[in-house]
Parts: sequence; structure tokens; C-alpha cells
Amino acid sequence: SGTGLAGASVAVEHGILLDLSGMNRILELDKENLTLTVEPGVLLMDLAAYAEERGFFYPPDPGEKTATIGGNISTNAGGMRAVKYGVTRDYVKGLNVVLADGEVLTLGGKIVKNSSGYDLLDIMIGSEGTLGVITQAVLKLLPLPARVVSMLAPFASLDAAVSAVPLITASGTAPAAVEFMERAVISDAESYLGRKFPDNSADAYLLLRFDGAADEISRRFDAAAEICLANGALDVLISDTEDREDSIWKARGSFLEAIKAGTTAMDEVDIVVPRSRVADMMLYAYSLQDEVGLQIKGFGHAGDGNVHIYLLRGDLSEEDWRSRLKLGMEKLYAMGRRLEGKISGEHGVGWAKRDYLKRYSSPREIEIMRAVKRAFDPDMILNPGKVCW
Amino acid sequence: SGTGLAGASVAVEHGILLDLSGMNRILELDKENLTLTVEPGVLLMDLAAYAEERGFFYPPDPGEKTATIGGNISTNAGGMRAVKYGVTRDYVKGLNVVLADGEVLTLGGKIVKNSSGYDLLDIMIGSEGTLGVITQAVLKLLPLPARVVSMLAPFASLDAAVSAVPLITASGTAPAAVEFMERAVISDAESYLGRKFPDNSADAYLLLRFDGAADEISRRFDAAAEICLANGALDVLISDTEDREDSIWKARGSFLEAIKAGTTAMDEVDIVVPRSRVADMMLYAYSLQDEVGLQIKGFGHAGDGNVHIYLLRGDLSEEDWRSRLKLGMEKLYAMGRRLEGKISGEHGVGWAKRDYLKRYSSPREIEIMRAVKRAFDPDMILNPGKVCW
Repeated sequence: SGTGLAGASVAVEHGILLDLSGMNRILELDKENLTLTVEPGVLLMDLAAYAEERGFFYPPDPGEKTATIGGNISTNAGGMRAVKYGVTRDYVKGLNVVLADGEVLTLGGKIVKNSSGYDLLDIMIGSEGTLGVITQAVLKLLPLPARVVSMLAPFASLDAAVSAVPLITASGTAPAAVEFMERAVISDAESYLGRKFPDNSADAYLLLRFDGAADEISRRFDAAAEICLANGALDVLISDTEDREDSIWKARGSFLEAIKAGTTAMDEVDIVVPRSRVADMMLYAYSLQDEVGLQIKGFGHAGDGNVHIYLLRGDLSEEDWRSRLKLGMEKLYAMGRRLEGKISGEHGVGWAKRDYLKRYSSPREIEIMRAVKRAFDPDMILNPGKVCW
Repeated sequence: SGTGLAGASVAVEHGILLDLSGMNRILELDKENLTLTVEPGVLLMDLAAYAEERGFFYPPDPGEKTATIGGNISTNAGGMRAVKYGVTRDYVKGLNVVLADGEVLTLGGKIVKNSSGYDLLDIMIGSEGTLGVITQAVLKLLPLPARVVSMLAPFASLDAAVSAVPLITASGTAPAAVEFMERAVISDAESYLGRKFPDNSADAYLLLRFDGAADEISRRFDAAAEICLANGALDVLISDTEDREDSIWKARGSFLEAIKAGTTAMDEVDIVVPRSRVADMMLYAYSLQDEVGLQIKGFGHAGDGNVHIYLLRGDLSEEDWRSRLKLGMEKLYAMGRRLEGKISGEHGVGWAKRDYLKRYSSPREIEIMRAVKRAFDPDMILNPGKVCW
């Protein structure tokens, strides 16, 4: 007796069964308050398209466009535009939530500010279906930026590429996305998509995207290009046609599937570290390839410090794979902590990371989280066992 | 046995006494991660100046510049730039907090994203010293905008002025502040400051501020001016000299003190409503002058729906003042709720609004807030009685 939200399954037991499968309507676009009221089953891609067709913009941009907005809210999904626009949390202004006993809470609303008691809205966001079932959300929209231009900058090494990032983010050029990518993963994407990436001159790339009014974009693009070229970029390629945008961002969007396609099994981390430590994290991950005996690939959000690192089974036996994977994971999370990071930037904890959450949080923090869970769901029936148990 | 944070007094009893009075150092500016690490006693004005002198920008801009950052965090203070930049919550990335039993929690950090368990950081922000004592904060900075220009637009009426606001906020002109003001309050400010406001042609004004790169500001200013003129503005005055900026914003900054100076006693609300309902809220407030027999003045953040309405004693007897104040408050909060607003946009609940919080929240919401309080402070010793009791 369960019902699924992509990204955060919600098992409702003990006599309450909420069927959310039909709850996929966009209920209201409020142009005065710049809000969109939706049911949780609306797909992110449909929501984004609906807003854009009407001149509005829903900035959160996680990779999985077929996720539901309810799932995005339940995991506080991030995405590539977080460096400029923030994450899902920053765009959820109100929620209707059904608690475990059937009572309905209405949190927040079409308001921009709120200091009226403890912030139960933000506790609900990212709670992975363990505190309540989201039945309606009021989302904040922005006016749609007039123009989008991307920049692809090849660098001699990952270290060189990622080292330029803090200079760019501090420059006032306000990139909407700052992604890093490497040759190995780009090759996977080329094979997977059956089409060439626009450049293959280098081992590492930064991919930047700028959005805004047409006149200001070119100034910001030029300033960022200068920073890249002064800090190790071998070149700076502009992407301002639909065709080029398509070939670059299709490649970027296919990385996960492309990596998957090249291996029999894989597992991943979603560690987030301070932006200044991304190179340290990635170089450490690659160093584990020899040390642990696993193939490791990565890409991620250089602008916000959220790295996706993939540990690949290759042709290892089940037993070897399990033991090396465990060791590799242990080492990656331990390094994430040493770099003052957290175990999950945007995917959430679920089952898979709950032991890491417990080990890498103070006992008191876990105790408080458990008390919060009991405050919302005293009978412990919503998505049992997840997050902090 | 207490110690004060401006905006949220923290009474620590039962054997723990934290003296925060000396905790006013700025500990670190991290230019790579765009963070500023501070102790709670740093004054907002000192923090803002420190960042600006170094080319960085701390956007939250509440009126009381001598407040401490600890107080700002404890009330989730807002301010005039919330319409573009958000509130204090949006700039707090990490906190060190001492719990009631002396245990220290470290929440968040120098990270941009986080989906690692329940969001205890956001529960702490705005909790008014009832859940823990903030001893250190990691704040997010932005690059300093190159230029600031303001616009003063006179309108024939408050209704006309405020009705233009949703058109401006939806236009992509991205004003950093959208304030409304009226002749009566401007006159108070003129008397109080002993200097003239730059315009006295109209009964109501919108005051807009734009920040950004020099080239883009003029385009955005012009677009917003066109919207104002097409929607009832009698004129559009640009303020692009230090002198003019000074005379306009000094007036705006003195409103509260100027209103206070003209009356023997006053009380206020900090209601926040959807942006589209600001005119309804203000017109209702003024209609109460006759109905309740009190002088009522107001101004506020038209861009974010947070209105500050002042009920003035004038020459009423103590008894008359008390009874009319009570009636006026009841009516204002009731209207705030009818307009789908909340009781506090940026000041918090404290003692004064806790009865309204209880009445205007569902019993279950209050029950959950109380459970959250007990989870952090089981002996109920921090800032006792505030917020939800």
C-alpha cells in the first residue's frame, strides 16, 4: 500500500492511502504575485515549459526532467542553475501537506517574507516523504531571461579548470551554470549519443551559461572569458546558436546515462563541498582508482561544489565489486567530511546514505531529527526507516 | 541572568550563562567561497561596510542598522532589498549554536547546497533565541553591484501607486527595492529631519532602487519608468547623485522615528500579505481610522507585501488608547488573514504576537512547533514563553 513520488517514494500505511497518481494539474499562474500553484505529480519538464511559454521562469534545473515537482521538493533537488538561482527550497513558498493521521497543514503561501513562528515549511522541504505527503505547492517564478548564451572553455587539466571557478563566481559575471567535465566522460557521451562534442582539444572543460538581457550578456560573457583565458583556458568557445547549445547541453545532459551504458553496475556519491575544494575532491576520487582498484568517473556542478562521482564495476566479480565499492565509498565520504562537505548536495539521504548521515552528524543532531520526525508522524508510518533511522 | 541579542533577547537560565557581549568579531572573509564568518554581536552596519569596502555585498537590509547579525538571524530579518535578494535566511549558510545544555551544534557550512537530513539550519533561523544561542554564523556574500540608481515616482493615490507594483516586479527590470510612502509620513519625516523631501507634488510615492552594472541599469530604469508612467505615475524622478540619494533614503530611513516623534505612544503591525493585496491591506487600515477612532499611518515594502502599519495614541486617555488599540489590532490581523497573509513578515513573534500566532495557526501547527522546541530545549530554559507558548 504505497504511492510513489519520483525521487522520494511515499509509503502510506495503517489505513491511510493517498493516491497521488492523478494529482498532476497546474492549478494557477498568478502573474501579480509571480507564483505557480501546482499539484505534486506535475513533471518538472511540463512545469518549466508551461512557465516559459508564458514568459516566466522556474529556475531549479535538476538533471532528471521527468521527475515530479513533488519529488523535487521532497529531496530539495538542486541542479545546474543553483550557482546563480539557488535550489528547489528557494522556490517553494507554500505547501499543503497531509500528515500521517490525515490532518492537513497549510504552510507558507503567496508571501515573500515570513517570520511567524518556527519554519515548518523548510523542515518539510527535503524531508523525503517522511514527515507528510505534499498535495499542493505554491512555487515562486521569475520573469524569463531574454537570452541565454553558453561558453565552453577547454583547459589542460581538471585542476586548472576548477581553479578558475572561484574567480568567475566572485567576478560579478553571474553565470547561471558552471559545470566541469572531462574527456573520459565526454567520450562516453559521444558514444552514447552517436554524435561529436563540439571540441576535443583538451582533457578538461568548463561549461558556463549566462542568462539575462541581450545587452548585458555579452559584457558578462566577455568578462568571464577574460578570466578563463588569464587562468589557464586554452580557448573560449561561444555557443549562441540553438544547434551548438543543443550539442553541448545534450552531451552534458547525457553524462549519467552514458556512464551507465558503459558498465554493468555502478554506484555514485552526491557529495557537496565548499566551492574552493572541488578540485581536491575530484583529484582524490581519481587517485582512488589505483588505490581501491575501481574505475571512477565524475562530473558536476563546479559552481556550487556538488560533485557526482561514479564508481564503476567494470568486469569485477560480484564479491570484488562489493568489497571495493564499500571501501571506495568509505574513503570518498571521509574525504568529503575532511573538506568540510556534506554527504548529499541534492539527492537526499533515503536508505542508501542513512548510515553515513548518522556517522557524520553529531548524535545530538540525529536525536533532534528523530524528535522532529516524531513531532510530525508519531506513529512512524510515513516512508519508514528513511533519512535518520 | 540574561544576555541580549538585538532583535531577540536570549535569556539563559538554570546555570548556563553565555556572555555574548564581546562576540563581535568578523572572523573570516573567504573570497573563493564568497562567505563571511562572523560572531553574533557584529552590527549589521559594520558587517555591510566591511564587505562593501572589499568589493562584496551582504544584501539583507533591515531598517535598524545598529542591530546585531545574531539578532537579524534570530528574527529572520528582512528589509528593503528582499524583493530582489531575499531575506536573512537566504544568506545564512552555516551556524554554530550552543544548546540549552551546553552542547554545540554545527549546522550547514560553506556549502551552497545541502540535502543531508532534516533542515535544522532553517529551523534555527528565525527561532528568536528559543532553540539555541548562536555563537557563529557563515554568511553568503555576493559581488558588489557596480552602481545604484533610485527612482521616485509620484502617484495621485496610494491605490494607484501600489497597483503598479506587480507590473514592475513581473517586468524583468529587477528592482532591488520597491517601497511605498505617503504624504502624511513624508511630512513627519520632513519635520523630524528638518529638511525637505525632493518632491511634494503628490499624495503617494513609489520609491524604487536598481543596482547592477552601469550599462544595464539605465535600460532597466527606463523600462520601469515606462511602466510607472503608463500606470498612473504623475512623473518619474531619477536620483543618481549622492546628494539626492541621501535626501530620499534618509527620509525613508527616518519614517519610524519620525512617526514616533509625533505621538505619545504607538504600536505597530508587521503583517505580510501577497504582493497583490498590499493596496487592500493599506486601504483597510486607513478605513479603521474612523471606525476605531485612532490615527493610523503606514509605509512599507510594496515589492514584497510586508506592510508596517502604526496605530498612534495621539491625545487619547490611557483607557481609550488601550481599548481602541486592542480593537484596531484585532481588525488588522483579521484582515491580514483574510488576505492570505501572515502575522509577521520580518519582526518575529516574541511576546507581543504569540496570541495571534496561536489563534491564526492550526492547533496542530502549534503542537508541532512546541514539539520542535522540546526537541532542542527539553527543559524549556531558553527565552522562555516566547513564540508559541
